[in-house]
Amino acid sequence: VQVSELVRSTSVPLATIKYYLREGLLPAARKVTARSSEYDEAHVRRLTLLRVLREVGGLPMTALRELVLAVDDPGLDVHAVFARATDAVAAARRPDPEPDEASRELARTVVARAGWTGVRPDAVDLDNLARVLAQVRGTGLFRVDERVLDLYASAADGIARAEIDALPRGDSRAVELERMVVGTVAFGEVLSILRRLAEEHHDERVTRGSGPAQRAE
Amino acid sequence: VQVSELVRSTSVPLATIKYYLREGLLPAARKVTARSSEYDEAHVRRLTLLRVLREVGGLPMTALRELVLAVDDPGLDVHAVFARATDAVAAARRPDPEPDEASRELARTVVARAGWTGVRPDAVDLDNLARVLAQVRGTGLFRVDERVLDLYASAADGIARAEIDALPRGDSRAVELERMVVGTVAFGEVLSILRRLAEEHHDERVTRGSGPAQRAE
Repeated sequence: VQVSELVRSTSVPLATIKYYLREGLLPAARKVTARSSEYDEAHVRRLTLLRVLREVGGLPMTALRELVLAVDDPGLDVHAVFARATDAVAAARRPDPEPDEASRELARTVVARAGWTGVRPDAVDLDNLARVLAQVRGTGLFRVDERVLDLYASAADGIARAEIDALPRGDSRAVELERMVVGTVAFGEVLSILRRLAEEHHDERVTRGSGPAQRAE
Repeated sequence: VQVSELVRSTSVPLATIKYYLREGLLPAARKVTARSSEYDEAHVRRLTLLRVLREVGGLPMTALRELVLAVDDPGLDVHAVFARATDAVAAARRPDPEPDEASRELARTVVARAGWTGVRPDAVDLDNLARVLAQVRGTGLFRVDERVLDLYASAADGIARAEIDALPRGDSRAVELERMVVGTVAFGEVLSILRRLAEEHHDERVTRGSGPAQRAE
């Protein structure tokens, strides 16, 4: 298809497409004549991937570039690229301060208690977890120990298991990767949003639900 | 305490503290002499709140300012301020494109099916949910219907119920608010991180777990 059609079908602006082409994030089109180029399904897929990562995942350009390098590296299997993708997502939202050793240890303990032996010891998210735990502990507002965290780990385990088991396998490498990366980022956001909505509901229930104002309505 | 002690106990840099004072995000200190001011527990709490919102929640200054106005408004009860806080957090991560009507309807359906009657119809997160769903549907990679979303809603409900029921009540308004806002933001990040770690584990299990490379180790 022509570039105008690519803009229409992906809703990515022409200027952004040209930028991605210059930066090598989007492969060059096939030259048909000196003045016209053909884009195909692979371009549509790549643009969709980049859009979700940027708009939902909030990834900066450096992370997008890194990720595209991994996707395009035929020496990496799908799982390895997925792991790099989660590293890129995690690195884009890493809290500032260095965690203390106790928080690092707590992060490792939670993962060990959950039985997640497939987690790389140098996963960026393991470091992020330690950083967030250090911040929460620093506030002095919450008891933060492995039993409190087991609630979150167990919910996370149930969701992740269902998600991974439901992933269709056997599509092309590009489609499988796109699905995993989009799924991680977008449904992660879905879960975060739903939790906040559920908190609003349950807090309303607890603090106002049985009050007279509610009954009078 | 002196401002130097405030810097030490909160790890917030002096320049940031001065900036917050100028912007009205931090109440002025009590003047003891012409050259010395006394900061108290309320300053420590406010700085901790701002730090978590900024570093973990990624809130921009405009959102922090809005939130502080709500926290300081005695006419708003704790639940109302909490709702505004979640709006500020949601607004800071709102995906760009306008959602289509079908995605809006799906977002409302998910919340209705979950029984979350306490969710305000104009909650920013309800709009965010529609936006993320529109993006995922746009990729054509996933079936996105209410049954798929029930999995996430049900996990979110279980977590939120446990979180809200476990909240200690009866502290001062300031402490209660701080705990709710920090809890929403920080444990939301904990849950997101744990889900990604669990996905890494389960994907490793499915794609490599039963392979010969694993057994040979």
